[in-house]
Amino acid sequence: HILTSAYWIQPVITFFRLAAISIGGLLLLKFFNLVVERYFTPKPGAKTLYIDEKRARTLSSLLMSIIRYIIYFIIAVMVLQEFRIDTTSIIAGAGIIGVAVGIGAQGLIKDFITGFYIILEDQYGVGDYIVSENMAGTVEELGFRVTRLRDGNGVLHIIPNGSIGRISNYTRGHTQAVVTVPVSYQADIDKVLALLDKVCAEVGKSMPEVLAGPVVVGITDLGASEIIVKLTAKTVPLEQGKVETAIRHKVRTLFAAARIPPFCPGCPDSTAVAEAPN
Amino acid sequence: HILTSAYWIQPVITFFRLAAISIGGLLLLKFFNLVVERYFTPKPGAKTLYIDEKRARTLSSLLMSIIRYIIYFIIAVMVLQEFRIDTTSIIAGAGIIGVAVGIGAQGLIKDFITGFYIILEDQYGVGDYIVSENMAGTVEELGFRVTRLRDGNGVLHIIPNGSIGRISNYTRGHTQAVVTVPVSYQADIDKVLALLDKVCAEVGKSMPEVLAGPVVVGITDLGASEIIVKLTAKTVPLEQGKVETAIRHKVRTLFAAARIPPFCPGCPDSTAVAEAPN
Amino acid sequence: HILTSAYWIQPVITFFRLAAISIGGLLLLKFFNLVVERYFTPKPGAKTLYIDEKRARTLSSLLMSIIRYIIYFIIAVMVLQEFRIDTTSIIAGAGIIGVAVGIGAQGLIKDFITGFYIILEDQYGVGDYIVSENMAGTVEELGFRVTRLRDGNGVLHIIPNGSIGRISNYTRGHTQAVVTVPVSYQADIDKVLALLDKVCAEVGKSMPEVLAGPVVVGITDLGASEIIVKLTAKTVPLEQGKVETAIRHKVRTLFAAARIPPFCPGCPDSTAVAEAPN
Amino acid sequence: HILTSAYWIQPVITFFRLAAISIGGLLLLKFFNLVVERYFTPKPGAKTLYIDEKRARTLSSLLMSIIRYIIYFIIAVMVLQEFRIDTTSIIAGAGIIGVAVGIGAQGLIKDFITGFYIILEDQYGVGDYIVSENMAGTVEELGFRVTRLRDGNGVLHIIPNGSIGRISNYTRGHTQAVVTVPVSYQADIDKVLALLDKVCAEVGKSMPEVLAGPVVVGITDLGASEIIVKLTAKTVPLEQGKVETAIRHKVRTLFAAARIPPFCPGCPDSTAVAEAPN
Amino acid sequence: HILTSAYWIQPVITFFRLAAISIGGLLLLKFFNLVVERYFTPKPGAKTLYIDEKRARTLSSLLMSIIRYIIYFIIAVMVLQEFRIDTTSIIAGAGIIGVAVGIGAQGLIKDFITGFYIILEDQYGVGDYIVSENMAGTVEELGFRVTRLRDGNGVLHIIPNGSIGRISNYTRGHTQAVVTVPVSYQADIDKVLALLDKVCAEVGKSMPEVLAGPVVVGITDLGASEIIVKLTAKTVPLEQGKVETAIRHKVRTLFAAARIPPFCPGCPDSTAVAEAPN
Amino acid sequence: HILTSAYWIQPVITFFRLAAISIGGLLLLKFFNLVVERYFTPKPGAKTLYIDEKRARTLSSLLMSIIRYIIYFIIAVMVLQEFRIDTTSIIAGAGIIGVAVGIGAQGLIKDFITGFYIILEDQYGVGDYIVSENMAGTVEELGFRVTRLRDGNGVLHIIPNGSIGRISNYTRGHTQAVVTVPVSYQADIDKVLALLDKVCAEVGKSMPEVLAGPVVVGITDLGASEIIVKLTAKTVPLEQGKVETAIRHKVRTLFAAARIPPFCPGCPDSTAVAEAPN
Amino acid sequence: HILTSAYWIQPVITFFRLAAISIGGLLLLKFFNLVVERYFTPKPGAKTLYIDEKRARTLSSLLMSIIRYIIYFIIAVMVLQEFRIDTTSIIAGAGIIGVAVGIGAQGLIKDFITGFYIILEDQYGVGDYIVSENMAGTVEELGFRVTRLRDGNGVLHIIPNGSIGRISNYTRGHTQAVVTVPVSYQADIDKVLALLDKVCAEVGKSMPEVLAGPVVVGITDLGASEIIVKLTAKTVPLEQGKVETAIRHKVRTLFAAARIPPFCPGCPDSTAVAEAPN
Repeated sequence: HILTSAYWIQPVITFFRLAAISIGGLLLLKFFNLVVERYFTPKPGAKTLYIDEKRARTLSSLLMSIIRYIIYFIIAVMVLQEFRIDTTSIIAGAGIIGVAVGIGAQGLIKDFITGFYIILEDQYGVGDYIVSENMAGTVEELGFRVTRLRDGNGVLHIIPNGSIGRISNYTRGHTQAVVTVPVSYQADIDKVLALLDKVCAEVGKSMPEVLAGPVVVGITDLGASEIIVKLTAKTVPLEQGKVETAIRHKVRTLFAAARIPPFCPGCPDSTAVAEAPN
Repeated sequence: HILTSAYWIQPVITFFRLAAISIGGLLLLKFFNLVVERYFTPKPGAKTLYIDEKRARTLSSLLMSIIRYIIYFIIAVMVLQEFRIDTTSIIAGAGIIGVAVGIGAQGLIKDFITGFYIILEDQYGVGDYIVSENMAGTVEELGFRVTRLRDGNGVLHIIPNGSIGRISNYTRGHTQAVVTVPVSYQADIDKVLALLDKVCAEVGKSMPEVLAGPVVVGITDLGASEIIVKLTAKTVPLEQGKVETAIRHKVRTLFAAARIPPFCPGCPDSTAVAEAPN
Repeated sequence: HILTSAYWIQPVITFFRLAAISIGGLLLLKFFNLVVERYFTPKPGAKTLYIDEKRARTLSSLLMSIIRYIIYFIIAVMVLQEFRIDTTSIIAGAGIIGVAVGIGAQGLIKDFITGFYIILEDQYGVGDYIVSENMAGTVEELGFRVTRLRDGNGVLHIIPNGSIGRISNYTRGHTQAVVTVPVSYQADIDKVLALLDKVCAEVGKSMPEVLAGPVVVGITDLGASEIIVKLTAKTVPLEQGKVETAIRHKVRTLFAAARIPPFCPGCPDSTAVAEAPN
Repeated sequence: HILTSAYWIQPVITFFRLAAISIGGLLLLKFFNLVVERYFTPKPGAKTLYIDEKRARTLSSLLMSIIRYIIYFIIAVMVLQEFRIDTTSIIAGAGIIGVAVGIGAQGLIKDFITGFYIILEDQYGVGDYIVSENMAGTVEELGFRVTRLRDGNGVLHIIPNGSIGRISNYTRGHTQAVVTVPVSYQADIDKVLALLDKVCAEVGKSMPEVLAGPVVVGITDLGASEIIVKLTAKTVPLEQGKVETAIRHKVRTLFAAARIPPFCPGCPDSTAVAEAPN
Repeated sequence: HILTSAYWIQPVITFFRLAAISIGGLLLLKFFNLVVERYFTPKPGAKTLYIDEKRARTLSSLLMSIIRYIIYFIIAVMVLQEFRIDTTSIIAGAGIIGVAVGIGAQGLIKDFITGFYIILEDQYGVGDYIVSENMAGTVEELGFRVTRLRDGNGVLHIIPNGSIGRISNYTRGHTQAVVTVPVSYQADIDKVLALLDKVCAEVGKSMPEVLAGPVVVGITDLGASEIIVKLTAKTVPLEQGKVETAIRHKVRTLFAAARIPPFCPGCPDSTAVAEAPN
Repeated sequence: HILTSAYWIQPVITFFRLAAISIGGLLLLKFFNLVVERYFTPKPGAKTLYIDEKRARTLSSLLMSIIRYIIYFIIAVMVLQEFRIDTTSIIAGAGIIGVAVGIGAQGLIKDFITGFYIILEDQYGVGDYIVSENMAGTVEELGFRVTRLRDGNGVLHIIPNGSIGRISNYTRGHTQAVVTVPVSYQADIDKVLALLDKVCAEVGKSMPEVLAGPVVVGITDLGASEIIVKLTAKTVPLEQGKVETAIRHKVRTLFAAARIPPFCPGCPDSTAVAEAPN
Repeated sequence: HILTSAYWIQPVITFFRLAAISIGGLLLLKFFNLVVERYFTPKPGAKTLYIDEKRARTLSSLLMSIIRYIIYFIIAVMVLQEFRIDTTSIIAGAGIIGVAVGIGAQGLIKDFITGFYIILEDQYGVGDYIVSENMAGTVEELGFRVTRLRDGNGVLHIIPNGSIGRISNYTRGHTQAVVTVPVSYQADIDKVLALLDKVCAEVGKSMPEVLAGPVVVGITDLGASEIIVKLTAKTVPLEQGKVETAIRHKVRTLFAAARIPPFCPGCPDSTAVAEAPN
């Protein structure tokens, strides 16, 4: 048996196959290296960088390590199989670890997929003011895994993209200023509405933040002790607060001047409006 | 052995099989190319386009890339199998990655399936005013994956279709205007109802937004300190606000003229209604 | 070798097997065509149609396309197997896609199963007034996948059947009208109850919507500042609102006539009930 | 070759095996027919029928159809396997559809299992008044899949059994009537408690719905402006409302007669209790 | 061929194997019968029976039926395999049904496992007063699948054990009585605290339900219009209500006697405390 | 055939293999016995016992039973395989039961893993006062599966460890006492703050429970009718209640002595503070 | 047979294979030992240690034990396979246990992955003040599995990293102080605003914690009985409380000095502001 060609050919073939498997693995490693280099490693001079460069480098080298160990594992198993060693138990073990890690890491995968879609669909960009469930703020950094918001109080909110479902973007278009004015039942409603029209005209003229002059919408509620009148205005995004305070200040000043009776039912001296301090 | 036909026929057959696998793979690639081209690539002149053209092109080329890599992978595995190399470990590895990505991407698949059904069933279209859970607005764009709404305050809401379950569409049919009027226990209820009938008649005549004249529904609550009377009207979709403010203004004017006593229990001088400012 | 029958018989057998597979596949396709035609395609003159015909046709042709592509895929794999090509990788790939789509589409399957059961168990029909969680309205269309409701404000609600668990149907039987009357501690409770009995008698006689005459249930709360008395009546489904307003109007009129003291603790002149406007 | 017995024996054996498979399948079908007939088809004269007969028949014939198609499918696959056709792709396809439908139908299975346990454990029966989460009513029909309740307002609630977890059954034993009486800080508490004891004695004697005479539990809250005293009574199931209104009426009458000062802090004339209308 | 021993030995071996399989199956059936009999069937005279005997018998015979059908199925499949019939499709089908039922029944399994642990860990027993989420009551029956509670109003609550996570048991140790007393800002706080100490001493002496005499904790809130003082006492389990009403009654009596000014800010005549009715 | 060595060697080998399997199984059983004995059975004299000894013994013998039955099952299946009996159906059946039980028992596994981590990380120990979601109390027993808490009212809470995610431990470090004092707008704020500083100095000196003397944080709210001033102090863990009542009592006494006007807007005689009862 | 080389070669090969498997297993164990040593065992002198050293050592030796037992198991199975023993049942059993533990431990894996990302992305560090859902505090320890927070009341919160999704970090940048001042309708609004500007100037100058001087935002609400004016300031992180109390104290002092009428509608003597105590 030992001298037949078949006896010697088998090891030679096995040797060549092992060589082929090793070389194939190395080529595959090279290929993934190039892919990671090309798609995931930040270019030094690139300006459309969503996350800062150092963190991106850490992530891409981490990704490369994981790929390398997986390829090593596959080559090792294939070499064992060439020697006719049953690898079912190894593959089953790796499979269970793979499923466990996969289930634990599904949040991660969801983060990346959602992050990819946020960028692809341009749902929001750096500098936009967005609201996502209980958090709101200006986008400071839009990464593949997390979005960082800075809110009006200076707090930094960090949101995993996977938990971003529904988004409200306040900086695509205009914003609306809304002011509600409580009016007493003892006041002449038509006189009040005329005064409010005057407020609208003055604010609309004097403020550049107003896109479409404030208008009196009308009576929006007949309450138990007061009438509610609503005013609205289209404003430059995020400037509605400024417009609203201006309208309220003007309303207060004009009402006091016109001696509109106060609408607070428990106020002690209702006829002496705005005179007390004088 | 070397000179027998069987010895040479095997490699030749293997060669032909490899060629067949490669050609089959390329044909498959071609086929999917055509399918993606036909169903997913927007036609330049098409007018029933749900999402903007550039984004659609990005998506369809992305889809084609994914299909291409999957076909390459299958061909590579089949070639290895032709050389009798055990590919169980490779397939198992790809399977685990596939399951992990599949679980992470199931939200995506759900988005597309729901989006497809929204369009197929015509649940809403661009321009409709819809409410979905905590978000409301006019539909600006209806894509396969997300719906974009613009609400009354100018905010842009972006909703993944998969999170759209129950939808309320306000622009299919009419809308109803509802006004509740609080009435004092000291007022003559029949006189009040007569006045409200007069309000209904006047508003119904003067406003084209009203489809079916406002009617007095009757007393809907005997409260602790006031009686609530309800009025309703059928209006053109989304114009109910205008009709409601008109009704409220008319109610206030007629009540003040008829000296209906005020229904605010803590009001200081209840007999002096609407006279104070004069 | 070439001239032996076994050498030639193998290809011939293979050919016949391929033919059998193809014919079997076509017959299967035909069979499913018939099934879809019979069960899922609407008959033109049928009157128990739950969804409109055009949408049903789109759905059944869509279903047929999916079946066709699946059968083509199975035939293709079986042909490859006849040529002894290892198709594990293809089947594994299709399997992963199948599982991913299946997970994404499970909502869809749940919609159809629940829709089927709603119809089979006659939980509600077109024209019924139902409440499902936060939505209420009259059923306009009852499809296999969605139910469309029109509510009292004219809004169209679209509910996927799969999200319909618990349902409240208001149009199977009667409805109950409920009126709560607040009574002052200064009033004589027996005189009040006698008056309310009179109200019940009059309303029960005069309104055809009442199925079982209104009755005074009794004192249902001894509150901090008022006593609550409850009245109920069985009415024709959905007509309870009309009956309730009628009862409230009658209560108000009789109480004012009988000078029952008002039950509002902060009212300014408690002895002057219902006289002020006269 | 053709003339050897082995050549002919193989087809003959195959033929017999095919026949055995077919006959076995038919017998299996027969067996399931009998099982369904016995356990799931309602007997015409049976009186312990939980759902109405027509619906039960529809369900059992539907079940039989599903079983029949599954057996046909298994026989078809086994016949193919006899002809040495690789059926992996067919079984994999059927498996994926099976898993998808199984996941979609798991709610259904849960409904039936829970329904079975509700009946087995006698959690409630037709006629019982139960509360399940946000729905309450008298059980009208208790099926394997859904429970139908009729509430006090005449509304029909349909609850899938699978969504029934915790159940409160009001008709197994007694019910408790609870009345809370607010008492002013200006009243003599011992005089009040004596009066309430008198109320308890009178109500306990006169009402057959009371199982154990009402008792004064004592002061259950020292509030900011009133003292709360509680009374309870054991009553016949669901008759607690009647007992409570009787107690409240008696309390009001006795208190007015004994001139207990009112406990409403904002009442205008506190000394003139119950005299005003006289 | 027919006359060789090998030709005949094969069927004989097959026969013996079939016999062995059948006998093995029957023995297995016997074994499970014994196990079920021993562990799950209630002994007539046993006194630690958690559920009533009839229901337990139904359950154990149901369990035996399920085991029997599973063993029959396994034997049938093994017999088919002896005849070299490919049973992949049958096993796959049974597997899918098994997974579907298993998913649907996982609630059931969770019920039993949790029930087992409740008993093993003695979390509560029959007669204990427990609170589980929104339900509270005295345990009437503690089964493997459900727990039955009877609450203070006589309602029977049925809770699947699997939905019992966190449990509060009120009958293991003592209970604490808590009374909060509102005190006016116009009262002398030290005089009030001295009075409350007197209350504690008297109640602690006279009531056997008190384990550790009531103590005055001190001022627990400086409110807008009143000061809150808290008293606590350790009592025999579930008797805290009795102790609390006794403390409150004593507080009220002593305060009225000592003329502590009332703490209700809107009370009309604040100087005339507790004198009005006299 | 019968006389050849091969014919007899096979059974002999089979016999030795069966013997080896059985012995291996027994050794495995022994090994697990030792492991369970060593890690899970409580030592009689051990003092770091987290749960009581009897319950621990029950659990470890239960665990041993489960391991024993699993090893018996594996040996039985391997013996069948030695006789070339196809055991796919048995393993599939056992697999389905295993998956079902595994899914049902995953809560159990989570309980043990979390319990293990709580002990390993020393998140809390017996005697600590912790808060977990809606339950709070002192830890009485910390087992691998459940934690038992005793709250201030004497109630025993039993929490499965798996439901313990976020924990708040009150006995690691100090606790903070917080007192908010409402101040009238009519009071001199600087005089009030000076008085409060005096309160802090006195309480800080006299109470050993105070770790860092109380400090006046300042005005924390300008309310509609009162100013809120906050005081805080670092105290020994869980003694904050005692410190807070002491501070409040001191505040009340000093304010009354200094005649700070009361901050209750509806109080009848605002000038007569703290004099009324004298 | 016994004397042929093939008969003896097989055992020799088997022996060498077993040796190779054992040596390979030991090398693997060594390799993992090194990996764990390098990446997971804390270096004694390292200063970037996130968790304390003893706990880290316990964890790394635990990890090593788990790896060791898994490798032993795989070697044992491979040895059995060398002896041609069918190990399907063993692998299936281990697989089920693996899946069950994997599902139970997925929370653990999620904890570690999230913890890793928190550190990698520098979401927060030791000493930062963060808010995560219902818990807030200063980070005391940031481990791979849990984060420990100490809140302002001295309570230690322990949060598994896996439950940390959205994070708000208060110590990256500035914080904003916000003060709302209620103003009476009877006050002169312009005089009030001038006074508030003065407050802002004084506080901005005197406090180093203020990064950008307080500004008066304007009227942010026209309420029923008062006007709300808002002031904001940029402060050093976490010092906003100090700035707010300073602003409020200054507002109160200046308003009292300028005799701004009080804004509490129920205050008894409105003209006598801040004079009463003098």
